[in-house]
This record gives sequence, C-alpha cells and structure tokens, in this order.
Amino acid sequence: MAQETAREVIAWCRRLAECSEEPGFTTRPFLSEPMRGVHAQLSEWMQRLGMTVRVDAAGNLRGVLAAAPLPAGSPSKRLFIGSHLDTVPHAGAFDGILGVVMGIALVELLGEKRLPYAIEVVGFSDEEGVRFGLPFIGSRGLAGTLSADVLERRDARGRTVADAIRAFGLDPHQRKDTVAGADAIGYLEFHIEQGPVLDRLGQPLGVVDAIAGQSRLGLVFKGDANHAGTTPMTARRDALAGAAEWITAVEQHAQHTHGLVATVGRIEAHPGATNVIAGTCRASLDVRHADDGTRTASVKHLVDAARDIARCRSLEVTCEPHLDQASVPMDPALTVMLQLSVAQAGHAVHRMTSGAGHDAMVVATVMPAAMLFLRTPGGISHHPDESVTASDVDAALTAGLGFLDELAREHRG
Amino acid sequence: MAQETAREVIAWCRRLAECSEEPGFTTRPFLSEPMRGVHAQLSEWMQRLGMTVRVDAAGNLRGVLAAAPLPAGSPSKRLFIGSHLDTVPHAGAFDGILGVVMGIALVELLGEKRLPYAIEVVGFSDEEGVRFGLPFIGSRGLAGTLSADVLERRDARGRTVADAIRAFGLDPHQRKDTVAGADAIGYLEFHIEQGPVLDRLGQPLGVVDAIAGQSRLGLVFKGDANHAGTTPMTARRDALAGAAEWITAVEQHAQHTHGLVATVGRIEAHPGATNVIAGTCRASLDVRHADDGTRTASVKHLVDAARDIARCRSLEVTCEPHLDQASVPMDPALTVMLQLSVAQAGHAVHRMTSGAGHDAMVVATVMPAAMLFLRTPGGISHHPDESVTASDVDAALTAGLGFLDELAREHRG
Repeated sequence: MAQETAREVIAWCRRLAECSEEPGFTTRPFLSEPMRGVHAQLSEWMQRLGMTVRVDAAGNLRGVLAAAPLPAGSPSKRLFIGSHLDTVPHAGAFDGILGVVMGIALVELLGEKRLPYAIEVVGFSDEEGVRFGLPFIGSRGLAGTLSADVLERRDARGRTVADAIRAFGLDPHQRKDTVAGADAIGYLEFHIEQGPVLDRLGQPLGVVDAIAGQSRLGLVFKGDANHAGTTPMTARRDALAGAAEWITAVEQHAQHTHGLVATVGRIEAHPGATNVIAGTCRASLDVRHADDGTRTASVKHLVDAARDIARCRSLEVTCEPHLDQASVPMDPALTVMLQLSVAQAGHAVHRMTSGAGHDAMVVATVMPAAMLFLRTPGGISHHPDESVTASDVDAALTAGLGFLDELAREHRG
Repeated sequence: MAQETAREVIAWCRRLAECSEEPGFTTRPFLSEPMRGVHAQLSEWMQRLGMTVRVDAAGNLRGVLAAAPLPAGSPSKRLFIGSHLDTVPHAGAFDGILGVVMGIALVELLGEKRLPYAIEVVGFSDEEGVRFGLPFIGSRGLAGTLSADVLERRDARGRTVADAIRAFGLDPHQRKDTVAGADAIGYLEFHIEQGPVLDRLGQPLGVVDAIAGQSRLGLVFKGDANHAGTTPMTARRDALAGAAEWITAVEQHAQHTHGLVATVGRIEAHPGATNVIAGTCRASLDVRHADDGTRTASVKHLVDAARDIARCRSLEVTCEPHLDQASVPMDPALTVMLQLSVAQAGHAVHRMTSGAGHDAMVVATVMPAAMLFLRTPGGISHHPDESVTASDVDAALTAGLGFLDELAREHRG
C-alpha cells in the first residue's frame, strides 16, 4: 500500500547518513556540525508538507501538523511521533533516524487529511549519549527532566552541554520550551529492533510491551599474583580462574531464566602476563529483564554465586552496583491499538520486550507511549551493514496509518 | 656451623639491593648503571679473598679462586658457582644475587683451603630478560650461544644489546672470552625457590632434579559482538563465555595431572564494553611439566578442549604456539652429590622440579649442572617482601661446603 513511500523512507535515511563527522562512515553525535544538515533537509521536507518547524532549546527538531478544526471549547490534542537523530560512531543508517523519517512519511501519506489531534514529529538531539557519556539528552528535554547538572556535564574537550547548545545557536535557558504540554495524548516510536528476534521468527514487526529494566555491576575478584611455574595448582588463589567459573555460572543462569539476558562483556586480569597467575580480575555484569522482580532476584543470585565461588577458592570478591534501572512498560491502551493496527495490516502480532533503552522509555514518564519494532536483518545494528527492507517499512507505515486512524476514532468520540 | 656467614650473606644481599634504578625499590636490568655498584662491591670482596676478578664481554662478573697446586701433567679443573645479578622491576633482594653471594661466601668459608679444582663465581648480567625481552643473555655468554642476532636485539629506547655492552665499557666482539673452557667440571646454582612448596613442607632446602619444560600459546576465540540487551541467550556467539568455559577446563585438567601447572594469566575481550557481548577473546596459556611427553600431551588436550568448546558454541578458535621449551634435567651425578650433602648437613632431602627457568638450564647444555633451592617464606618472590632466613642460608652453606668436599674427593682420586 505504501510501497513507494517505503522506498522513499529508506532513500531518505541513506541520504541523511551522509551527514557525518567522518567521511565514509556515519558518526553524528549531539549537536555536531553534520546535525545541521539533517535539520535543514528534514525541515525543508516538513515545511513542504505544511508543518510548522522549529528546533527547541535541547536541540530537538520539531515539526507540527495542525489538527483538524475542533468544535469550540474542545481541548487541543497532540500525538508525538519521534526518535533520535544522533548516532554512535560508525553507525548504520537507520538506528533512530528511521523513526523520525517514518513520522514525516506518515504525515506525507495523510495528504490533505487532518486528524482530531495535531501530530508533532520530534527528532531528538541525543539518545546514544556518545558525546557526554549520558544518554537521552533530547527526550529529557521533552519530558522536562533536563536538569541543570545535565547542562553542566562536559564532553572530552571540556565543553558543557550548555556550551554545545549555545554553539548550535540555541539558548540553553529556554528549557521550558522543550517540555511537552498538557495537550499530549501519546507518543509513538518506530525503531529497528537491533536484535535477531524478528528476523529469526520471519516477522516484519514487533509490538514492544515493555523496555527491560537493567542492572549493571562491576565485580572484582582478588587472589594472589604468583609465578605460573613455581606455584602448584593446590597452592593457587587464581582470580581469573574464579572469574571464569563465575562467567559460566552467569551464562547458565540466564539460559535457564525465561526472558533474562545476562552478559559479562568486560574483563581485565592483573598483572596480565602469560607467566603470572592473575591476582586480580575485574568483570562487568549486565542483567536485563522486563520484570524488575525477576531481574533483581537474578542479580542477587549471581552476586551470591560470585561469593560462593570466591569462598570455595579462598578469593575475595567485591560487587559494586553501577546502574539499577526499572523496567518501563509501554501504555496498555496505545499498545493494544498498535497490535490491532499490525493485525489489520495483515501481519502476525509479536509482542516483545525491548532489551535496549529507547527514547520511549523517557517519554513514557510524562505521557502514554507505544513502540513498534521493525525487523533488523541479521540483527546487525550499530554497524554500517545495518539495514531494513522496503517491505518491512511498508508494513510499518501501513500499521502506523492504522494506528493514527484508531487514535482518531477514539479522540473523535 | 656457618651462622655468622649466613647473616653476612643476607646483609650483603640487602645492601646490594640498594643498587637500583629506582630509589626505594630494587630495579636493576641488564648493564644498567646500578649494576656497576654491584660489580664494584662484589669485586672488592672477591679480591680481598684472593680471587682474580674480571667482567666478561657479556657483562658477567667473574671471580676465580685458584685450585690447589696440581701434580705435573694433571688437567686443570674448574667448578662454576653462579646465578644472576639483574632483577625484575620492584624486585626482592634475593632472587639471583643470593646465588652469587653464596658462591663468594663459600670461598670465604674455605679460608686458606684450596681444592683440586678452581672455583669460578659468576654473576650473570641478565637472566630476567626485562630490558631486551629475551632472558639469559649472561648465561648464553658462558654457554657460547650469545649469537649475533641476540646482540642486535633492541630495548624500548632502540638501543641494541651490543650498544649496551659498549656503553658499559666492554667490547661485544670479544664474545669468545665469555665461553666456559674445557676445564669446566660442573656448575652449581643456589637460588630461592620462588614458590610455596618448601615453605609448606617446612623444609629449608630442595634439590632440583629438572627444570620443567614450558609451552606458551596464544588462543583467540571469535564469535559475534552483539548488543547485550537485544540478543537473546540462544542467539549469542559469546567469545568471552567460550573462553571462560575453557579456562575452567584448563584448571581442571592441571588439577588432575600430577606435577602439571597450567595457567591462563592474560585475557582480553573485545570490544570490552559492559553492554556488548564480546566478539573476540584472546587468552594466553602457560603449561609446564618436568616430563616433556606429559606436557605436550596436555597442550594437545587443552587445544582440543578449546576446539570442542568452540564447536559447541559455534565459535571459531585459533591457537598460536609461542614457546615450546624442553625440560632440562640436572646432572644425575652432581645431583646425587648435592642430595648427599643436604642429608649430611642434617636436613631432609626433598627432590623437586623447578617450575621456573634458571641460568642452570642454559649452562646445563655445556656442562654438568646442579641446583639447590632455598625455602622462600610465603612463596613470595619478585616482590620487595621476598626473603630468606639466616638458618636456611646456614643450611645451604653447610650443604654447599659438603658438596665442594664431595666433589674434591671425586677429583682428587
């Protein structure tokens, strides 16, 4: 139905990927110079569609399609559709920006039609957190949680978020103009899955029911750094061998706990020489689950496992929590509407948890939010090979139009 | 019996430990400036004892105590007693240098007595290999294996071994004057154990029967670096989880193979982020055993284990051999003589394999060699806390004098 538009969406994303700090790659952090090019191109398109465009004080690009004229006295209503315009270094062409382009494409597909609510397409300035080591600067603006301490955070060159906003020609003190008003009725985000689930299932779309909670911890196993030749196996306190046993336990626990993912991605052994038994081993732990109870119970189990392993090996172990972020459920009513639209577009409805964080997680704190995943071929993301197919974008656009209609039906009544 | 001398030996070692590149620590690499101080002090002592002292072209300090006058026509004979004078960074006061000081102390204990063989005490210039990343430069000189390519090897500042020899006032082309002559009848090395075995047994001395062979390998496990949140446990190819399973298998194999030590001391996971599944994991393997057959069979078993684990996890694994060094047996006749001397000194005879390499390993290629270990309290070595007790040094000196007598008895006949 929207095949032509779907191909246009992909062409837009590919073209915008050239707005980059690095020729040949897509690298576009918060309010970097190439972000101006993205703003200029998308603004021009939105204005052509009759939208009112501005860049808010958090650097978010925002275009509004007015609602149909309302009966006198009716409250104004606004649906936000958005995602982020920044990227990781050497990114693909679709992570984030696809959700913004899809929003504009839906407005294009509406043609002259107006809905009982305004549509505001938002291209968030920062979700990845690459430049300031802190994600969601853009969506914090919309949610009204862009606090003074965030504005004072510094990048690698010592410039603050506020400096960056000023350098982009904006006024960081106008933060109130970033915040969603009382007319917000919801937020819809299209995003690539960035994982292999839909691809393995052979399905184009996934309706997100929750964004998984995350725990991150740092563990340190301590033993004795000794000579690898002169220390018999029975006289060792090998920190790396202890960590290795624990890493296997982490994996096994996650494999046996439905819906849980647990990862040790970082490891350092000291002194780190071939002929020296490791005296210290540091390891990271990342645990995610849609249900916070399951997640916190798993973290406790895995920390206990580390302590048991350490005790049996006469090692010491310390665990430092770095992050404990609750799961964020998507809005049930909007999510049902999205499921219905997917079904009516002729596709199987696959409900899933998002293992990654998304802008919807932040926006959901101030308004009902819903999220639709598009299949990511091979699960490849954060990589130049990241892709989407035109038929999947077509499916998402069709479901998106259905969603707009469902929402209109509800707000007309 | 030699209690006074034993205390003197320890005082000498402690005093010489102050010859260091770093104030407050003992750091004395190959032909570094502080090595001059060690040479000067030991030379002065040896000369006082009537020894003829020189520094050879490999930077080894060599002092000779002449033999008793021989019957006309008898071939001259020479026993070497030595160890190394260089240290690792932030070393203890006894690793290496104790064996040189003990050699001189034995000469001192001989007093006016002369033996039917000369005694040449050698303080090797390099055993640790810190400066040029290649050990045994000193003992290679004595063994005649100080090849031209070793002389051209460069340190971190780009200076060659030959440059370093010249800078120390020596002529690297006089290599022949470093080589042991045909009069060599044996080599005796006293060394701290650098491990916990004698300390745990409660014994002062250990007679080394072999220096273990060593294999060193580098393994690389390869999987897919994926998002820790969006990749279900069933869709992972986690290189670090594979390596962890293998590290546990390495430890278990060594625990169940008598006399084997196997160590994974170095590990690197890439990309090495908390929220990214490791796509690549590099690990080192160090395997040692007195019996080369057992060692090579173990290496094969552990490489096969890595391949099996990789296959089950759809990972790839590559193994690169870095070192395959055969076990070096000590000379049976000299070793029996050393055992006898230990027993006659009133101590239990504990025969053991040296898990670490020593100068004796290199010297053994050109003459019969024997080695006596002194207990290392706590097994602590390569550390400022490294120590020996005066009573253990006393035991070693007494056994050493017994050994000189036994050897004299044999060479008188």
